[in-house]
Amino acid sequence: MGRPTLEFWFEFASTYSYPAAFRVDEVANASGVDVVWRPFLLGPIFKSQGWDTSPFNIYETKGRYMWRDIERTCARYRLPYKRPTVMPQNGLAAARVACCFDDAPWLREFVRQMYQANFVHNLDISSVSTLGSVLEALDVDADATLAAASTDESKAKLRAQTERAIELGIFGAPTFVAGEELFWGHDRLEEAVEWAANR
Amino acid sequence: MGRPTLEFWFEFASTYSYPAAFRVDEVANASGVDVVWRPFLLGPIFKSQGWDTSPFNIYETKGRYMWRDIERTCARYRLPYKRPTVMPQNGLAAARVACCFDDAPWLREFVRQMYQANFVHNLDISSVSTLGSVLEALDVDADATLAAASTDESKAKLRAQTERAIELGIFGAPTFVAGEELFWGHDRLEEAVEWAANR
Repeated sequence: MGRPTLEFWFEFASTYSYPAAFRVDEVANASGVDVVWRPFLLGPIFKSQGWDTSPFNIYETKGRYMWRDIERTCARYRLPYKRPTVMPQNGLAAARVACCFDDAPWLREFVRQMYQANFVHNLDISSVSTLGSVLEALDVDADATLAAASTDESKAKLRAQTERAIELGIFGAPTFVAGEELFWGHDRLEEAVEWAANR
Repeated sequence: MGRPTLEFWFEFASTYSYPAAFRVDEVANASGVDVVWRPFLLGPIFKSQGWDTSPFNIYETKGRYMWRDIERTCARYRLPYKRPTVMPQNGLAAARVACCFDDAPWLREFVRQMYQANFVHNLDISSVSTLGSVLEALDVDADATLAAASTDESKAKLRAQTERAIELGIFGAPTFVAGEELFWGHDRLEEAVEWAANR
């Protein structure tokens, strides 16, 4: 029998997905749980709720809280952080790469570096230059990877994954899925892992 | 020097305030932190965001998640729970009692019993009969208490407390306040206590 698994659903524009991407494997592994990484897009989900931007922009007070809280959260887990000038960024191209190459050995590190490009270095994560330099730093052929991630098949794969998120009842990121159980938010990571370990 | 304090801001209609009301004193006390209980109303805050009911009713997927999550959360902390038929209930009268008698020795137990009236026994928490029987069970004179809670002064006190919540940047319940720091959600209780203990 294999180890239990936990699905980690993340969106590149999501602030709280950043600490989650850096912590999920370690927390899960300590409980003997494997993590399956699932990039998806929140945009279509927000749109179906009538939102054309992040709820943190729509609801100002909540947004103010979140910016303080993410700063505090990064400090707590010793992650570098600098508030980016644009929020939400466009994570479509990054999500296509992550979805297309979801079984690549460099996937997790790519995702983590893209989060730091956004939430530490204030780089445009939709640009070929940012994507390319993150890939090259991981010794991955950037041109070939970006080309493969832009085929119709890759686009369809990410669309299908976002459809799957909707079917699961996902409405925010990060969301952890253990069997039928959803846990929304970085602050529920430990509980999600516990659930996955004990089912 | 006194012990550090944490403010516990709660709303009677709020699902996640229920487990928080049962756990906050114990968790805080274990870290040498005292808790100040602060009832307030979310209605006026939601209204200013354009909502005329709970966001869990407006955003269906989020609501579905919350109902499963609160059930799971209550089981985790061994609290009885039964989904009420009405959500959100009208917590105005209960909040006036709690605000008017915020230094009464029976305050905490009154609040906890009102949460169980709502989230275990499916009683109408706005009714004089529910309020009265909870007060009587605590050996409190129900008629005198309800009369005192309905004076203009008591109404003004609750309005002022809700104004204070808005000034603090509170947008949901429960919210824990440690100095200038806000922590939103029952799932942030431990972190809020840690913050209060160490500042």
